[in-house]
Amino acid sequence: MQALTYTRSSDHPSWSEVARPTIQDATDAVVRITTTTICGSDLHILKGDVPEVTEGRVLGHEAIGVIEELGSAVTSFAVGDRVLISCITSCGRCEQCRTGRYGICSGGGGWILGHTIDGVQADFARIPFADYSLYAVPDALDDEQVLFLADILPTAFEVGVINGKVQPGDTVAIVGAGPVGLAALMTAQLFTPGRIIVSDPLASRRERALEYGADVAIDPTNGDAAAQVLALTDGVGVDVAIEAVGLPATFESAVDMVRAGGRLANIGVHGKPVTLHMERLWTRDVTITTGLVDTWSIPMLLRLVEQGKLDGRRFATHHFDLDHVVDAYGEFGDAATSGVNKVVLHGDALVNRAGTADVLVAAVD
Amino acid sequence: MQALTYTRSSDHPSWSEVARPTIQDATDAVVRITTTTICGSDLHILKGDVPEVTEGRVLGHEAIGVIEELGSAVTSFAVGDRVLISCITSCGRCEQCRTGRYGICSGGGGWILGHTIDGVQADFARIPFADYSLYAVPDALDDEQVLFLADILPTAFEVGVINGKVQPGDTVAIVGAGPVGLAALMTAQLFTPGRIIVSDPLASRRERALEYGADVAIDPTNGDAAAQVLALTDGVGVDVAIEAVGLPATFESAVDMVRAGGRLANIGVHGKPVTLHMERLWTRDVTITTGLVDTWSIPMLLRLVEQGKLDGRRFATHHFDLDHVVDAYGEFGDAATSGVNKVVLHGDALVNRAGTADVLVAAVD
Amino acid sequence: MQALTYTRSSDHPSWSEVARPTIQDATDAVVRITTTTICGSDLHILKGDVPEVTEGRVLGHEAIGVIEELGSAVTSFAVGDRVLISCITSCGRCEQCRTGRYGICSGGGGWILGHTIDGVQADFARIPFADYSLYAVPDALDDEQVLFLADILPTAFEVGVINGKVQPGDTVAIVGAGPVGLAALMTAQLFTPGRIIVSDPLASRRERALEYGADVAIDPTNGDAAAQVLALTDGVGVDVAIEAVGLPATFESAVDMVRAGGRLANIGVHGKPVTLHMERLWTRDVTITTGLVDTWSIPMLLRLVEQGKLDGRRFATHHFDLDHVVDAYGEFGDAATSGVNKVVLHGDALVNRAGTADVLVAAVD
Amino acid sequence: MQALTYTRSSDHPSWSEVARPTIQDATDAVVRITTTTICGSDLHILKGDVPEVTEGRVLGHEAIGVIEELGSAVTSFAVGDRVLISCITSCGRCEQCRTGRYGICSGGGGWILGHTIDGVQADFARIPFADYSLYAVPDALDDEQVLFLADILPTAFEVGVINGKVQPGDTVAIVGAGPVGLAALMTAQLFTPGRIIVSDPLASRRERALEYGADVAIDPTNGDAAAQVLALTDGVGVDVAIEAVGLPATFESAVDMVRAGGRLANIGVHGKPVTLHMERLWTRDVTITTGLVDTWSIPMLLRLVEQGKLDGRRFATHHFDLDHVVDAYGEFGDAATSGVNKVVLHGDALVNRAGTADVLVAAVD
Repeated sequence: MQALTYTRSSDHPSWSEVARPTIQDATDAVVRITTTTICGSDLHILKGDVPEVTEGRVLGHEAIGVIEELGSAVTSFAVGDRVLISCITSCGRCEQCRTGRYGICSGGGGWILGHTIDGVQADFARIPFADYSLYAVPDALDDEQVLFLADILPTAFEVGVINGKVQPGDTVAIVGAGPVGLAALMTAQLFTPGRIIVSDPLASRRERALEYGADVAIDPTNGDAAAQVLALTDGVGVDVAIEAVGLPATFESAVDMVRAGGRLANIGVHGKPVTLHMERLWTRDVTITTGLVDTWSIPMLLRLVEQGKLDGRRFATHHFDLDHVVDAYGEFGDAATSGVNKVVLHGDALVNRAGTADVLVAAVD
Repeated sequence: MQALTYTRSSDHPSWSEVARPTIQDATDAVVRITTTTICGSDLHILKGDVPEVTEGRVLGHEAIGVIEELGSAVTSFAVGDRVLISCITSCGRCEQCRTGRYGICSGGGGWILGHTIDGVQADFARIPFADYSLYAVPDALDDEQVLFLADILPTAFEVGVINGKVQPGDTVAIVGAGPVGLAALMTAQLFTPGRIIVSDPLASRRERALEYGADVAIDPTNGDAAAQVLALTDGVGVDVAIEAVGLPATFESAVDMVRAGGRLANIGVHGKPVTLHMERLWTRDVTITTGLVDTWSIPMLLRLVEQGKLDGRRFATHHFDLDHVVDAYGEFGDAATSGVNKVVLHGDALVNRAGTADVLVAAVD
Repeated sequence: MQALTYTRSSDHPSWSEVARPTIQDATDAVVRITTTTICGSDLHILKGDVPEVTEGRVLGHEAIGVIEELGSAVTSFAVGDRVLISCITSCGRCEQCRTGRYGICSGGGGWILGHTIDGVQADFARIPFADYSLYAVPDALDDEQVLFLADILPTAFEVGVINGKVQPGDTVAIVGAGPVGLAALMTAQLFTPGRIIVSDPLASRRERALEYGADVAIDPTNGDAAAQVLALTDGVGVDVAIEAVGLPATFESAVDMVRAGGRLANIGVHGKPVTLHMERLWTRDVTITTGLVDTWSIPMLLRLVEQGKLDGRRFATHHFDLDHVVDAYGEFGDAATSGVNKVVLHGDALVNRAGTADVLVAAVD
Repeated sequence: MQALTYTRSSDHPSWSEVARPTIQDATDAVVRITTTTICGSDLHILKGDVPEVTEGRVLGHEAIGVIEELGSAVTSFAVGDRVLISCITSCGRCEQCRTGRYGICSGGGGWILGHTIDGVQADFARIPFADYSLYAVPDALDDEQVLFLADILPTAFEVGVINGKVQPGDTVAIVGAGPVGLAALMTAQLFTPGRIIVSDPLASRRERALEYGADVAIDPTNGDAAAQVLALTDGVGVDVAIEAVGLPATFESAVDMVRAGGRLANIGVHGKPVTLHMERLWTRDVTITTGLVDTWSIPMLLRLVEQGKLDGRRFATHHFDLDHVVDAYGEFGDAATSGVNKVVLHGDALVNRAGTADVLVAAVD
């Protein structure tokens, strides 16, 4: 079959002919991929930021597909079932999984797809621990309505909104209006905060944030973001700040936005240490949380989509046939120019594509 | 001044000339009433169901007004401030108040207005413990936008929605679509449940519930309500049932609607014991809560009203000049005929009214 | 092999020769039983109170043993491992299990051993869903130190102490000082309550409660138990009442002991409805919880036993060779006379026993 | 009267004759001090680390005394009552106080005694907001049993144990075994953790920690403390780390001790920023909390002392007559040599003392 793979010598993904995956363990499923998308972390991999990704690794960890083959120990699904593939694979048996912390599964799961094992930007993908890592898609929903429940919606909800304990009436700041920041903005509204302030340097993202329900959108290049937020909150700060960028400057600014007694929930993927001003924070009753998504919220988010109370399709600004995934990477990697939020890659299966991407990853965050 | 008072020999409220209240304790305020409303419990009092209410007691515990006079120990307000009078008076010092349980204040507060001391359906009212029992009304909001934050909105939110731990995606049943049931319906939506089922025997109330955001409205006279709810939920039951009536039959039905692992939050005012089927419940992981409102949520609800995210005015179906409060009682007391949800009683002050109400309280729940 | 089985025509258990269990599903284990015990619910079964138990059913749901055979899908254990058999079997895959509610597993688990499938008072037992229903026993611990973690310790802790939210400094009432009541007394102390009041009509149980750490033990036949508790708490009532009997009278008394703002956690196995005085409770901020144990706390309790901070052996007042299990049932069934709390049944395996028990079950609670 | 005051030009406290405090606001009390103690922050003040402390400020924020005079608005106490003076003064009216966050009171309270207003190391002290800042001492308890409930016990409990969510069975690391670290060790045991590891460079403190209930005491100068903790926990780390020192090195080490999914609760008083390794932490589900004590737990801790379940006297290693407070500062300031944990300063009132302390503050942490 064909798959999009990582080459250490290039920041372009390339189509490769690789062996079609088969059942290796009794808990595996093999899924034929029908719809997939690209994540910011795929761009990080292409840039060489994720050293554990090895040469030739199939990329991708968000997809919808149809079960083609099942290991003998899988009991929750049947061949032919249409399923959402969670970005998190979980063994379901380890102490972490038994307490709902699937993201830090110590039994061989966690974020492994397109990372330490082959991923889903391919004709077929092998999904370990299928009982715990796949979710049945209701017939009434199409792929695109459900696709973003594989990663960004549960990530933003669990790691941003739930860890940050957003409550009705709260004032919330969201630092960064990329796909995950916007997903935080969308899912924060499930709790009806009083006011949401979004900060992003790109005008197009600020506009999108206002469309998605932000009450105010500020430009951090237009003076210190924390100072702007304090000015908007009578000098008090916000109840909850959600960091959705992953840089020292944005993290430190997010901490400075939080009121005494407030919470900072980090979603950003960080590559460097940050400075924490404990000489100011030690008296301020601040709670800081970090974490990978556990995806416990996928069934609940599915119900909200079914009920028409959450619209995952809004994230999809650009659509590509899978033949043009290379173009999709290019547009997604240069969001400042292209205005892409998330792409949707459609196709019955990934056949008859060739060539190496000539995309240059312009900016990753 | 004039005030609406309780007469043991009549189920009609009557206008009486009573002494204008004055400061008795250093923590008191005297408030000139500008807007008030009628509560179901006022009707219970008129029917004689609340024996601790004595002859001549001034009725009413929900109002907005202007501070006329202040005790020397009150520090949070000034004469002339426009304030919301909470239905709960709280001393702020006792162990219950120190842990936020103002509704069961053991220092002389709790529900006392129009109950054990004179209430607010009058030209003026004395409010004990003013620092803890009044809330400043923002200039931008008119009386009617704020009036229902005195009682039914925080009651429904705290005792129904918060005690019931409504979460995004939950299926919620609300038993009873009177004013408090509708307030539960409105405030449950702050947490974006997946589906809300409302049960009420009155068609007009079921229609109103659908307008206010219920997904389904069932008629309990049309077959067992719990059986209808189970049929709507694949036999599983709801995550949260909120009882907003106060009768044994509705309580017992509400318990039967709850799924294994679910919650029952009681708001209803009960006059009789109920039967609890512990022989079925002991294995079902069900949590049952009771309680008076503490009104801790008033400042938060005020913020949501200010931000335009909660509209208290929707409750006000009928408006009366205070001269016609007797008519208002009549309409409110016969909601099945009148279609009243809540009334708003306007007036600069309650002057020049006369006569005794000839209203008959038709139905109280 | 031999097993202790239920005969509908008798309130005595009897030894029967039955087929040795084998692996039926890939997730099964067969365990050779080395130590077991008797539960109050075994007595209920013998009395005919549990109609779903069929003729010839092997009794028992608490045991320790050694894995003899494993299904192909079991990955957490190996043949020869010494394991604790949880009273709750859980599939680990259903929505209830995924949220930690193993006790109400909807995937074929729950309380099934010695109930709807054959149990553990036998030479061998088949345990479905072995990965989720067995726990490795550390080498340093002997069977008796761990045996009561199969049921009464996690039941008392989760359903009584955790559901009741016992906190440091709380005043706690425990109604009933049988095995589960004493387990609640022992595990409540993990949270250092300020005062624990135990109520039981048997003098020997009250004495044992005082030895186990109760601060006061009252006799409910010596005047109303709730009135005694109120007298001991300045008329306020307790923060948490734990019902560990299962009768209407004890439940209703336990509710009356709870302070405004307090919690009632039911552990008792109920056979009849109770009366709930909602006409008093609706204003009192009381939370009532029910539920079966989920056994999530078994790994934690195992750690405390390993650290010497919890001593499960204290429950074992009487020891029997498995040849004398019939005598053990007799003594356990007549605790008022025998003074038994829990029995331990030792044996390499259950061989060479014969006859039918001539024990009469005197009292079950 | 006489009082111990701060002189900017000296790191010694000195006795000064100052005006006896009087009632300034209706909510004030004047308390005659009978027993007091010295806190690490008093030493920080003497070293000049707390610039907001002005010349001549009376030191001290922990004491017991007798009410001498009361403002007209104080209703909870009478002249002659023996009271504990909380280190936190709280207005009881602001939004922070209304939600139990007394430590960050925005109405004029917080840590003000011996800091921004005159403190309690004096014959008499004025206590603002007396209703909220004093606690009645039960007759059966002597001063020394209650003294440490003014600050270190609630601080360690609320900011360390409660913020860190210590649960039964947890593995807990406490970094620093000074007075606050030992108070965290003592109050963590209210929740029966499975294992407590204490780290301190002083052998005498490690010995004391073992006496107070630590399971292991490690020496951080004997190899990296975090590495030692990981070695003791099979490489997993602890459920909760409590930082009780306040230096970048100890904070960063404490973070490194925490398991994926664990909590870090900071109690230490920090003077410098720390480095937070977000490049490692972002995936690890770690929660970090900071904060001043709110003292909500004082009534609960008083109950535990009354019940004999908490022994505050254990902290008091050295006793001084108030005439010798200067010596007390010397011993407390040089704990490495003196072995002092906390001192108790007794006296009917602070009379007839003279001179300037010749103590050199050797080490402050």
